[in-house]
Amino acid sequence: MALRFHKETLPNGLTVVAEENTGAHTAAVGFFVRTGARDEERPVMGVSHFLEHMMFKGTAQRTADEVNREFDAMGASNNAYTSEENTVYWARVLPEKLPLAVDLIGDMLRPALRDEDFDIEKNVILEEIGMYEDRPQWRLHDSLCEVHFGDHPMSYRILGTTDSIKALCVDQMRDYFSERYSPDNVTVAAAGKLDFGRLVEDVKQRCAAWAPTGTERRYDPPSLESRDHALQDPKLSRHYVAMICPGPTAQDPRRYAAAVLTDVLGAADGSRLYWALIDPGLADEADISINTQDRTGCYLAYASCDPGRAQQVEQILLETLDGYAQRIDAGEIERAKNKIATDDTLAGESPGGRMRAIGLQWTYLGRYVSLAEEIEQLMAVTVDDVRDLMTAYPFQPRTVARLGP
Amino acid sequence: MALRFHKETLPNGLTVVAEENTGAHTAAVGFFVRTGARDEERPVMGVSHFLEHMMFKGTAQRTADEVNREFDAMGASNNAYTSEENTVYWARVLPEKLPLAVDLIGDMLRPALRDEDFDIEKNVILEEIGMYEDRPQWRLHDSLCEVHFGDHPMSYRILGTTDSIKALCVDQMRDYFSERYSPDNVTVAAAGKLDFGRLVEDVKQRCAAWAPTGTERRYDPPSLESRDHALQDPKLSRHYVAMICPGPTAQDPRRYAAAVLTDVLGAADGSRLYWALIDPGLADEADISINTQDRTGCYLAYASCDPGRAQQVEQILLETLDGYAQRIDAGEIERAKNKIATDDTLAGESPGGRMRAIGLQWTYLGRYVSLAEEIEQLMAVTVDDVRDLMTAYPFQPRTVARLGP
Repeated sequence: MALRFHKETLPNGLTVVAEENTGAHTAAVGFFVRTGARDEERPVMGVSHFLEHMMFKGTAQRTADEVNREFDAMGASNNAYTSEENTVYWARVLPEKLPLAVDLIGDMLRPALRDEDFDIEKNVILEEIGMYEDRPQWRLHDSLCEVHFGDHPMSYRILGTTDSIKALCVDQMRDYFSERYSPDNVTVAAAGKLDFGRLVEDVKQRCAAWAPTGTERRYDPPSLESRDHALQDPKLSRHYVAMICPGPTAQDPRRYAAAVLTDVLGAADGSRLYWALIDPGLADEADISINTQDRTGCYLAYASCDPGRAQQVEQILLETLDGYAQRIDAGEIERAKNKIATDDTLAGESPGGRMRAIGLQWTYLGRYVSLAEEIEQLMAVTVDDVRDLMTAYPFQPRTVARLGP
Repeated sequence: MALRFHKETLPNGLTVVAEENTGAHTAAVGFFVRTGARDEERPVMGVSHFLEHMMFKGTAQRTADEVNREFDAMGASNNAYTSEENTVYWARVLPEKLPLAVDLIGDMLRPALRDEDFDIEKNVILEEIGMYEDRPQWRLHDSLCEVHFGDHPMSYRILGTTDSIKALCVDQMRDYFSERYSPDNVTVAAAGKLDFGRLVEDVKQRCAAWAPTGTERRYDPPSLESRDHALQDPKLSRHYVAMICPGPTAQDPRRYAAAVLTDVLGAADGSRLYWALIDPGLADEADISINTQDRTGCYLAYASCDPGRAQQVEQILLETLDGYAQRIDAGEIERAKNKIATDDTLAGESPGGRMRAIGLQWTYLGRYVSLAEEIEQLMAVTVDDVRDLMTAYPFQPRTVARLGP
């Protein structure tokens, strides 16, 4: 296996990055648009995600049915997702189909946005929001962010609300699209068996004529304080609790220490939370994770349990966070590093995993990080690094939200 | 990349199979025990899954904490699962750690089954059952199988019921364990970068002394007829509908045609069900799948929607199944084959995916099927094969179950 990194920026600002792997049997490509819920104005909340759906509804040259059929005909495994800050369109294919995938996604990202498709798709989005009603964990997460971030855009719901989606007009979506899907706001990332020269030609064919707008993201910090929030829904059988507080950003070198720390504290298996809550049967699910984002970041903790144990479970969850600084164990940190290194190596075996990694790294850091460098940084984390991290991010100020019957 | 298949059966009947891949960067191993809910007696329903949990609670030589720590220390990504008919313990590791993983899982599968651990773990299982209460889709699936299979063991809930778990004694579990975890009922499957001679030695070290019981599975066919079932729960916001009917078995060559057929009819994206229900916003989730099992098999269909559209969605779902024979489209079948072939190739790139495939193939077929053969069989599926399949398995007799407010 030989790995080689390539990069080229088109005159309009669109950047193409790729990790070529001569030993791979497939290829993966993703178009990473640096836009999401945090880049919306409140009245159009949900427009990023709705727009992602509309990209599959056809272009000047293709109907929705043709878009779908062509993905199928090339045997692609493909999808798209929208987060608080990224909208990503990707496909994994056999290497000889990569040019077809690039041509198709490149065309999709200049969508027709037809009035009638917009009206029909609005119902699909409203259905998706309706589905949330039976997912207590998702409802709780949305409330948690709203209470924690207040008016700040980081509080916006990715799907929007029933009201914001009902009120949305297609012209508002067109404006958002024109502004945010600017080539200087897009990275095309590919990995696996590929010919970089050919890839750049294929991207140029579709994207060289896109006009840049120089769109930028706002980074006003939210004003945070510790808050408590309780929601009741007599329809529920279980109790749910969630916590959010600041953590390192996607640009912060301390993100490696944070990955180790959250593995020690709250990984699904063998973590402190596992032994404190799951192993003795006090809770059915519990985890602590880090979400590193563009110049911001947060820790998230979560548990669900029998309503009769709500208080006990919440207390143990918070004590697991707050008591750690006094009980750091070097052996535990070494084990967590080994575990994450294996996970990274496993994910790195698939072109899809590498495409995702280099696409996000380019979006956040503007540079390439090889898997070897990633693992080296991780393995360099020391007990002191974890201690320094906890001084900088002491799980405060934090918001705790509860949802139960 | 060079692939080589190896196989060796120990004198006590335990079989070791492996697909060695010199180009891989990791290795994966799984212990496949041919036992699950269908092999239980009704009074001990849930014992297979509960026993799987107990395997992580320690052995004569290791405490539960040591089991967990050792997985972490070798950086393993590991887990276990229990289905209607298989209980599988697996780990994915860096190649040099494979002997450690084999030693640990091999030891785990001769568990201490201590009384006090059993009592504590019982609460964990009861929590897990409690969690189901807020998962309408899982509840509906359990009811669907109970109505469809009646008294037959295929109706048993994998987790058991609150009553069956509360009543279970540790001696019943010990009896079940002694009978079913017999070496002639276990396949060890590995894939990736590995030394087969060393692997067999490591397995022998732990498993050669296991005494065989000659345990067998019963294959009495269920008596099926078309049934209808409706459940109400005023706590729900959405309506859920599910359908089950006979399909080809894991041993049936028609399983390839069934994979193509269900992709055409009910894949998450671009299928007939997608265009009929998801695209127009009538349902939020809908799919049709095939579950090929040991000498049995079933099609499953599922949708969730706004309660006001319950009847319309169910009608479209069933019409998608029943109307297909009159509207077969050869191009659609070719596209589905390409799509599945790419998915198989993608999954085949990871040792974990190959370990799973060869372990299950050995369990069901008693032979090795390379990825190349798998894809060849798939690509050979014709329109006539799909037609013949539908004559043999006409989506009848079928049970439909509904759950709504």
